Amino acid sequence: MVNWFWRKGAKRSWVDAPKLRPRSEDSGSATRVDLAELAPHREQFLAQAAYLQLVAFEGLSASVATAPDLAAKERLTRAAAIALEKHHALVAEITRTGADAATVMQAHSAGIPFFQHATRGDTWAESLVTTHITGGILDDFFVRVAGGLPDDLERRIRAIYASASHEPLLSEQLRILIELQPTQAAHLAMWGRRLVGDTILVARSALAAPPSSANDEARIEPVFTELIAAHTRRMDALGLTA
Amino acid sequence: MVNWFWRKGAKRSWVDAPKLRPRSEDSGSATRVDLAELAPHREQFLAQAAYLQLVAFEGLSASVATAPDLAAKERLTRAAAIALEKHHALVAEITRTGADAATVMQAHSAGIPFFQHATRGDTWAESLVTTHITGGILDDFFVRVAGGLPDDLERRIRAIYASASHEPLLSEQLRILIELQPTQAAHLAMWGRRLVGDTILVARSALAAPPSSANDEARIEPVFTELIAAHTRRMDALGLTA
Repeated sequence: MVNWFWRKGAKRSWVDAPKLRPRSEDSGSATRVDLAELAPHREQFLAQAAYLQLVAFEGLSASVATAPDLAAKERLTRAAAIALEKHHALVAEITRTGADAATVMQAHSAGIPFFQHATRGDTWAESLVTTHITGGILDDFFVRVAGGLPDDLERRIRAIYASASHEPLLSEQLRILIELQPTQAAHLAMWGRRLVGDTILVARSALAAPPSSANDEARIEPVFTELIAAHTRRMDALGLTA
Repeated sequence: MVNWFWRKGAKRSWVDAPKLRPRSEDSGSATRVDLAELAPHREQFLAQAAYLQLVAFEGLSASVATAPDLAAKERLTRAAAIALEKHHALVAEITRTGADAATVMQAHSAGIPFFQHATRGDTWAESLVTTHITGGILDDFFVRVAGGLPDDLERRIRAIYASASHEPLLSEQLRILIELQPTQAAHLAMWGRRLVGDTILVARSALAAPPSSANDEARIEPVFTELIAAHTRRMDALGLTA
């Protein structure tokens, strides 16, 4: 029997990239594995969710600092505040377990600095797309994985993610930007597509255990396919081809 | 009679630096002019106070991004959240007047981008000192100037500044840093001293009108001397010579 649950010290291989079929949405629910079955240990979940909100905050606050005008700054400070509140709410859940948040985040940080580096945009527009697209996929992901946590914790985690989203603010800012500079659209669409692999990879590393066979791989695919479908809708809403 | 009140379109000269006597605390209250008498127009006050909290937030969030470890990041995200909350509370006061916050901040922004540029640290330690020292002086300043605002607004402004301060978090972080790297102390002390001129300058530009004679200059000096005395206590608390 496959051990889907968290294995202490299990190594996540960065080479073990998910083989996605982003265009296919007909994978069939018969083969579907709910991500909740793969839910990580409580500590690992909270650590990675909290750290990745910190990454979103860092991206947003850098976008505040480099915004071209105060109206854009204002919009982005709102988004930054939302990411920061989520981060602190997740840190509070770690503290509630009696652990030290920084220590726990450090212990489960493998892959996150790489993800942050690999997805960092070179321009203001790229950075906005990064936070919007990676944040969207990861928030979707953690909400789904929360189903595998104890009920009371699951309820609080869902409340944290449901409380507010930086998505509308970022998508408004990106629509303004693309309207003003329509020639950027093709480049940003490519940048958006390029982010998916690294984002799915860091999400995979937050699962209880990496799939251990080609068969497991096939079973897990539909879940990621759904995350990709939501990503495609997010890109469509910006008028970008996913 | 001197027109202390806000003059629309009055130019603030950057050459007109205050002639401070930072070491002297015996200026005598007989000559004291309370900053409240120089209180700017409501809009100007709110715009500059809000913009300068945004500058503090940008400095803190850059320090989060470059922090050497997650414990430091955590401490600094708390400080960043406080600056961001103050900024949003001040923006809410602008919005309450029916004005657009970004427009109003832009209209009263003269000198602020220069201040931000001139006080930007080259290292993580310098940046922390910048936010701690300039934020401390400016918060003191705006609380004092608030005395010249209408009573209800003054009460709300005082509540915003009293709600929380990033000062204890930053001074804790700086004490840790100086304890680990005592050889940095002399350099950071010099950096701290160097920040005072630019900070007083940007504070001065937020006054209703710049002093227009040598006599006015002499009358306003004691107030800035008090801000400097508080600054000296802040430096002392870090073990740095002011």
